[in-house]
Amino acid sequence: MIHFPARTVFPHTTNVSAKGHLIVGGCDTVELAAEYGTPLYIFDEDTLGTLSKQFLQEFGSRYPNTKVVYASKAFINPALARLFSEVGLGLEVVSGGELSVVLAGGVAAGDVYFHGNNKSREELQLAVSNGVGRVVVDNLFELNSLDEVARDAGCVQDVLIRISPNVDPHTHAYISTGNLDSKFGFPIETGQAEEAITKAISAKNLRLLGLHCHIGSQILETSPHAEAVRVTLRFAAQMRKVGLELTEFSSGGGFGIAYTRDEEPPSISAYADAITATLIEECEALGFINKPTLVIEPGRSIVGPAGVALYSVGSRKAITGVRTYINVDGGMGDNIRPALYGARYEAVVANKLDQIAEEEVTISGKFCESGDVLVSGIALPSTEPGDIIAIPASGAYCPAMSSNYNMVARPAIVLVGGGNSRLIRRRESYQDMMASDVL
Amino acid sequence: MIHFPARTVFPHTTNVSAKGHLIVGGCDTVELAAEYGTPLYIFDEDTLGTLSKQFLQEFGSRYPNTKVVYASKAFINPALARLFSEVGLGLEVVSGGELSVVLAGGVAAGDVYFHGNNKSREELQLAVSNGVGRVVVDNLFELNSLDEVARDAGCVQDVLIRISPNVDPHTHAYISTGNLDSKFGFPIETGQAEEAITKAISAKNLRLLGLHCHIGSQILETSPHAEAVRVTLRFAAQMRKVGLELTEFSSGGGFGIAYTRDEEPPSISAYADAITATLIEECEALGFINKPTLVIEPGRSIVGPAGVALYSVGSRKAITGVRTYINVDGGMGDNIRPALYGARYEAVVANKLDQIAEEEVTISGKFCESGDVLVSGIALPSTEPGDIIAIPASGAYCPAMSSNYNMVARPAIVLVGGGNSRLIRRRESYQDMMASDVL
Repeated sequence: MIHFPARTVFPHTTNVSAKGHLIVGGCDTVELAAEYGTPLYIFDEDTLGTLSKQFLQEFGSRYPNTKVVYASKAFINPALARLFSEVGLGLEVVSGGELSVVLAGGVAAGDVYFHGNNKSREELQLAVSNGVGRVVVDNLFELNSLDEVARDAGCVQDVLIRISPNVDPHTHAYISTGNLDSKFGFPIETGQAEEAITKAISAKNLRLLGLHCHIGSQILETSPHAEAVRVTLRFAAQMRKVGLELTEFSSGGGFGIAYTRDEEPPSISAYADAITATLIEECEALGFINKPTLVIEPGRSIVGPAGVALYSVGSRKAITGVRTYINVDGGMGDNIRPALYGARYEAVVANKLDQIAEEEVTISGKFCESGDVLVSGIALPSTEPGDIIAIPASGAYCPAMSSNYNMVARPAIVLVGGGNSRLIRRRESYQDMMASDVL
Repeated sequence: MIHFPARTVFPHTTNVSAKGHLIVGGCDTVELAAEYGTPLYIFDEDTLGTLSKQFLQEFGSRYPNTKVVYASKAFINPALARLFSEVGLGLEVVSGGELSVVLAGGVAAGDVYFHGNNKSREELQLAVSNGVGRVVVDNLFELNSLDEVARDAGCVQDVLIRISPNVDPHTHAYISTGNLDSKFGFPIETGQAEEAITKAISAKNLRLLGLHCHIGSQILETSPHAEAVRVTLRFAAQMRKVGLELTEFSSGGGFGIAYTRDEEPPSISAYADAITATLIEECEALGFINKPTLVIEPGRSIVGPAGVALYSVGSRKAITGVRTYINVDGGMGDNIRPALYGARYEAVVANKLDQIAEEEVTISGKFCESGDVLVSGIALPSTEPGDIIAIPASGAYCPAMSSNYNMVARPAIVLVGGGNSRLIRRRESYQDMMASDVL
């Protein structure tokens, strides 16, 4: 048995071969790197499916009337949209682009929730004309525009109102969205949420089904979620006076994951416990006889743990008494999270899992910036050019935020399962990167 | 005369029309926004040309044997590569992708400098087979690979050696590159620079022409540049003992620009004074009778001030006693600098330059993240949906680092001059964003 302490942050199917190679989804990652080239992102189909089903099961068993809607912004493409749809998830999108992707993946528009703080009129038209299930209205400008767009299309659009519950999620400020000072949603305190509900109810071409809140991302406690449910339900009860019927309540997503072996986020069942228990308790206390449909929106918590990034080692720089850099063929262009959020990751040498750690190194990328560091200070076996570095928990907000900085191509992406691999995004070519340029 | 305090950070040709519209390159930016859509990046041809010529002139008049090489990583596409080449600049690239772009723009390969801390073998082959002017060697792995690649191609490649001079540039840690703890270049103190020079001289298929250093980016003082010149020249003098002839010396770039009206970076002539005076002084003191060719590498300092980003105002959120957000149709997907570096920008309402500031607002984008703020707390006239926000000094590291986060299309880019506009990059379509996807 090979000692592999970082195993907890790798996909469920992860194993080690007799050669000491990292196996994911039954595939030898070293062979995948050779076949598809590096940098390469692999997604484990079993982990995607298992986590999706866990959300459906853990919430559904406690609160049968639950819809699980995948938050596409963590990462989406047509193949993944199809996969999530087939497992039974709805899809949450935040732009016309994401809507187009999930439609291209064959998702029924009725299963789509359309979010965003500044949807354009064109995006609203695209949503209405395709018949998206819900538009989650963020502000009055949007409410008025959407009513007009639906009127012009001769239909009535189902909507939720996004409220800002003023709950601190205890996460990075960049991804904390439910406090009072937020660009997202209608604040309760200021009366703006009540005004929005009143207007939505009176809007001729909108049908208000309920409320949505989303307090942030990568939240590592259950209590902020419970608090957001409590605040929103109590507010919903008050809003009966203006005619609100809470048919549906979306508590958003933000479920945190482990990026490093020392992190222990709440389990899916712990999140389900906190959210459903609070919802049931508040419904009873507040006299909601017909309990609303609960909508939850996991994104990172499904796609994050399923993804592994593979890089090839190139040059090395050992500065005596200071630090040893090993440079890989990707970096901040495909994973900006360390530079942007100070995110920490684990890493292993995928072709040397049978070797013990011999030195502490910093894994840096090929981008021309000192901030281009993937993992700072990690113990690894001695590496040489051509070795394969695997970074787990790379499925969320890595390809999704990738750029062509330094005109480096964005990586290929492969789905693995049962010993088979399937390309779901090919690597960009130099020509691809110039496709929009006009000389 | 309209009061326009932010004028200093706009392109040289900026003006205000009788209607109170922002004019750049003789074009009404409000009309450009209508014609090309928003978000739109415009580059002022006159500013690009003038700044390029100032670098040529200010350095050339003090030190005739100077080459000015544009650092493509700030932003490049084929049209800009052609423009810079026609003005008389060389082109510096950091990847096979950037090399392909400048070649597509018709730049002669001999005018190209190839940098980077982790060039792949394929990139070195591309560089050698196209005959790039210089490869700037960063590490021993690269030195050996390049020697082999040149041997296989049957040629001798001209190279510079990048040294790490251990000079603090007093800039953001992410873009500070010349200190001892850096992934870039060979440190002097540890003996690695000497080893590299010895090996480069003895490599059969490399011709060592000199040394390169680059201490960082957005440096707002001249003294770190002077210090880097001094350290490198003194080291070069010592290295005569192993046979170094300093035919060429590249002091890199990193010349800072003003992003806000209160910033006053050194002028190009001040940078030229500091660098050339130190170089001449050290050459005389150290007995370099044949003074080396000086290479300087401005990127941001040419393309940054020439660029203006145009956005349309959409929704607004006024939180009483807290903050007013005005949301535009772009954000961190096209300009990640505020979130990544804490960068500050000016902004004006391009169609209301004849109106006085009435309120303090925060300009946020359409991306689903609280970190998606372009300008925090700025006084603007009262805005309404459809107004055009212009953010100056947006030419560098904005389109260059842009992503499809939230599946939002990357903006169109237009070159303006003499009242004419020309599209040099079209806006992406939804289909473009899925071009690499395989279902």
